[in-house]
Amino acid sequence: MGTKVPIILFVFVMLCALSSAIPSKRKSYTPCKNMVLYFHDIIYNGMNAANATSSIVAAPQGANLTILAPQFHFGNIAVFDDPITLDNNLHSKPIGRAQGFYVYDTKNTYTSWLGFTFVLNSTYHEGTITFAGADPIMQKSRDISVTGGTGDFFMHRGIATIMTDAFEGEVYFRLRVEIKFFECW
Amino acid sequence: MGTKVPIILFVFVMLCALSSAIPSKRKSYTPCKNMVLYFHDIIYNGMNAANATSSIVAAPQGANLTILAPQFHFGNIAVFDDPITLDNNLHSKPIGRAQGFYVYDTKNTYTSWLGFTFVLNSTYHEGTITFAGADPIMQKSRDISVTGGTGDFFMHRGIATIMTDAFEGEVYFRLRVEIKFFECW
Amino acid sequence: MGTKVPIILFVFVMLCALSSAIPSKRKSYTPCKNMVLYFHDIIYNGMNAANATSSIVAAPQGANLTILAPQFHFGNIAVFDDPITLDNNLHSKPIGRAQGFYVYDTKNTYTSWLGFTFVLNSTYHEGTITFAGADPIMQKSRDISVTGGTGDFFMHRGIATIMTDAFEGEVYFRLRVEIKFFECW
Repeated sequence: MGTKVPIILFVFVMLCALSSAIPSKRKSYTPCKNMVLYFHDIIYNGMNAANATSSIVAAPQGANLTILAPQFHFGNIAVFDDPITLDNNLHSKPIGRAQGFYVYDTKNTYTSWLGFTFVLNSTYHEGTITFAGADPIMQKSRDISVTGGTGDFFMHRGIATIMTDAFEGEVYFRLRVEIKFFECW
Repeated sequence: MGTKVPIILFVFVMLCALSSAIPSKRKSYTPCKNMVLYFHDIIYNGMNAANATSSIVAAPQGANLTILAPQFHFGNIAVFDDPITLDNNLHSKPIGRAQGFYVYDTKNTYTSWLGFTFVLNSTYHEGTITFAGADPIMQKSRDISVTGGTGDFFMHRGIATIMTDAFEGEVYFRLRVEIKFFECW
Repeated sequence: MGTKVPIILFVFVMLCALSSAIPSKRKSYTPCKNMVLYFHDIIYNGMNAANATSSIVAAPQGANLTILAPQFHFGNIAVFDDPITLDNNLHSKPIGRAQGFYVYDTKNTYTSWLGFTFVLNSTYHEGTITFAGADPIMQKSRDISVTGGTGDFFMHRGIATIMTDAFEGEVYFRLRVEIKFFECW
């Protein structure tokens, strides 16, 4: 017995050590929450005031506010209030608005920097999700950061994988956004 | 005795399991830190250069930089350096500056997108708090994300509840900001 | 023996308690990852279109887009796509691009607000790091927040310490950025 007890205890110490090594916060690479949403951007071009959901509000020297700048739109800032839908149909009932801005920031290819928030307000979701990061538009799939959330998404963090789902002239584009939360609270 | 030891050990295993189940990071919905601050924005209107703390720096096509744009100011970007006070008096001694920008981003109501930092520098607080998110101005109370901090607020995250505490014409507004940190380090 | 077992068990309970008190997520003030990088900004001044990496795209009323605004550039927004290097030599091989914008936001000193992303793409690093915060330029060393990351920097958070490493006229500046991650996943 005198030798058995230490062995049993050794096993328990190992168990305790193991159990405390398992993170108390979910940190695996499996999202704790996952959503796919679409948003639709119609940029004002001087003729579509009624339908436009975004406007060029800044441009580099020599450019103007109705036509995207030459040199891959470098220097343009657009402000947007775009409908968010559950599928890829512009005319589906919106479940919220994507609000914020994008900046075209490269002279020799199309890239932008995004700062925006999904303001969701439907039976599905109630709350906000805020995004920030570089968007190398020409890549099929690219990741940006989900830096915070409120409401249903209180304190959430994660990654959003963005794909350009449609691109029509320089007036309409649609982004497919897969939001993967890895911190859910 | 041969049966007592396992029972005692069983209790300890339970205790160990329990103790490791308590999150090592504070994740409850009770803030680990809480502050109420006010900041004051006086927008430049062409006649108040001496007092103005913010300026319109971008506007949509057809608008200008001294008058906020029609259509709920959609497309305006304002840059600000606003005093932060402990109470709601513009003339109280500032404990820091709120610095950053806001974007008016809806055509049929007042909403903005905020990206700014509280730069605090007083006997009360030393450090920065950075905010990002959508601000549906017409709602009495709205939440944005606190995405990071430095100094006294090193690595903090949380939620800020914003209320419009005063609104005078289109020149002055005062926001009450209740900052609730849920990650404090 | 009857007294020895409880003592041994007491020790184990203490050990278990201790081990579970060690955070499962690295939360000490020692970074879990650390990098020093430089980025180089050449602002367009009307004569350097070939070399410029950034442009003024917004300015307050009365200013223009080729000369930084009076009053400490208050109200200017610049968009940039700057090379990132491992050392302080503008002509070293870039390991990525710093993309985003800065806003000059004070009328009586030089401060800016930064929103940008390091897009790293080399044998050293593959992924993005997103930064946000106030930059009180005249201070030798200042901290901003690292709000998120993707790729090699998946879900990372931290602090970046920025120093102005060179400043030539109002055309070129070089920033030394020490990125200290405190959440690494």
